[in-house]
Amino acid sequence: MISKAKSKFIKSLQIKKYRKQEQCFVVEGSKSVAELIRSDYETILLLATAEFLSAVGTSLPGALDVIEVTSSELSGLGEFQTNDGALAVARMKPAIAVVPEKDEWLLAVDDIRDPGNLGTIIRTADWYGIRKIVASEQTAEFYNPKVIHASMGSFLRVDMYYTSLSVYLDASAVPVVGAFLDGEDIHGVDFGESGILVIGNESHGISPAVASRVGIRVTIPRFGAAESLNAGIATAVVLDNIRRAQKKR
Amino acid sequence: MISKAKSKFIKSLQIKKYRKQEQCFVVEGSKSVAELIRSDYETILLLATAEFLSAVGTSLPGALDVIEVTSSELSGLGEFQTNDGALAVARMKPAIAVVPEKDEWLLAVDDIRDPGNLGTIIRTADWYGIRKIVASEQTAEFYNPKVIHASMGSFLRVDMYYTSLSVYLDASAVPVVGAFLDGEDIHGVDFGESGILVIGNESHGISPAVASRVGIRVTIPRFGAAESLNAGIATAVVLDNIRRAQKKR
Repeated sequence: MISKAKSKFIKSLQIKKYRKQEQCFVVEGSKSVAELIRSDYETILLLATAEFLSAVGTSLPGALDVIEVTSSELSGLGEFQTNDGALAVARMKPAIAVVPEKDEWLLAVDDIRDPGNLGTIIRTADWYGIRKIVASEQTAEFYNPKVIHASMGSFLRVDMYYTSLSVYLDASAVPVVGAFLDGEDIHGVDFGESGILVIGNESHGISPAVASRVGIRVTIPRFGAAESLNAGIATAVVLDNIRRAQKKR
Repeated sequence: MISKAKSKFIKSLQIKKYRKQEQCFVVEGSKSVAELIRSDYETILLLATAEFLSAVGTSLPGALDVIEVTSSELSGLGEFQTNDGALAVARMKPAIAVVPEKDEWLLAVDDIRDPGNLGTIIRTADWYGIRKIVASEQTAEFYNPKVIHASMGSFLRVDMYYTSLSVYLDASAVPVVGAFLDGEDIHGVDFGESGILVIGNESHGISPAVASRVGIRVTIPRFGAAESLNAGIATAVVLDNIRRAQKKR
């Protein structure tokens, strides 16, 4: 049984203001929660069904506040109506500036507003071995429950840093690549060992201030009539081409 | 001013049962509605602001029922809360079986349940010049307002046909390609002139009955730790590799 105070605390974390104030966020679903507990995030509260608890066994940290609940108690506590067995509250990590190593690619997201899109981009970055994302300050919040959910656990492996993208890119020593409609065909670009790939806003693309910092303009070749691609889709296609070019080196 | 009867009719089309009964669907937003009017779909009702109507000018079909409305009248009529100027009701097209031409690639979607995912897949197909999609009967409905919206106008250029995928694939004369975690690296596959690319369900992938009909199992190479990619993302990456292989032929 969960107390009213804890239930209120968890629900408050659906709102950005309270997440910021408490420096805590919510992770929902058995798979993501099981991964969270094994990660370097500090989990402070775990609500889980008996099945979940017996499955994770004795691997729970001793200091963790664990409450056994029923599935129906879980529903309605989080952002999502269905939950298959666990919900956890974890502490945010301190923001640390991300810097590309000499053989590393980073992603820069310029005002990705939709949390689902951002979560998908984090998941895609993780698939392609990108571990650091730098984001403009208007980008959706990393700890938003919809971002965490859409990232499918990849939020645990990718660090995000919010800052002014133009200032960040000005200070960068590696090539800056951006996808535009009038750039070089990505199928022929010899992407280097390291760089920053800039992804623009869903509706407006890369902002003029950021575009002026892009050194290599590339284009995903089009064979049909759609005007543009979804931001997450464009990220994946360019990353696939970057990794393919690197394999050939 | 819009009558109560018309308002009720439009709202009823948010529900699949009434769309099927009326054989009509709703398109929202200035850009999509302007494209709809110029397409080969029959538009039967147009609600639009004075700005939209003066922009489309005299190009409206004479038989079309046009009602001038204010922006605030538009809000709340459709699926989406914000609408920048137009909403139209159009007649569904009769379902026609899609068949690949001898130099054509088709997409087959096996139980894509999320309307947003399906809309993004239609948009991506259109970008890569795929004009026909065959879908399992459990796939989200093509005329669902969320599918139409996420397709960003591409629903006008891509035909979808719902049927039993295993029966369809058994009758197919072209190679059937499917993305799995244990297939051949797509970066090295010489995709042919024509084929059918099968995309699996968001959670369960390609169903066993359909998987047994896949002749060429391919894999998107992974460089990081995410368990899988979003279905729309996987579609785009494989299509990009198919088109790239064809350019080299």
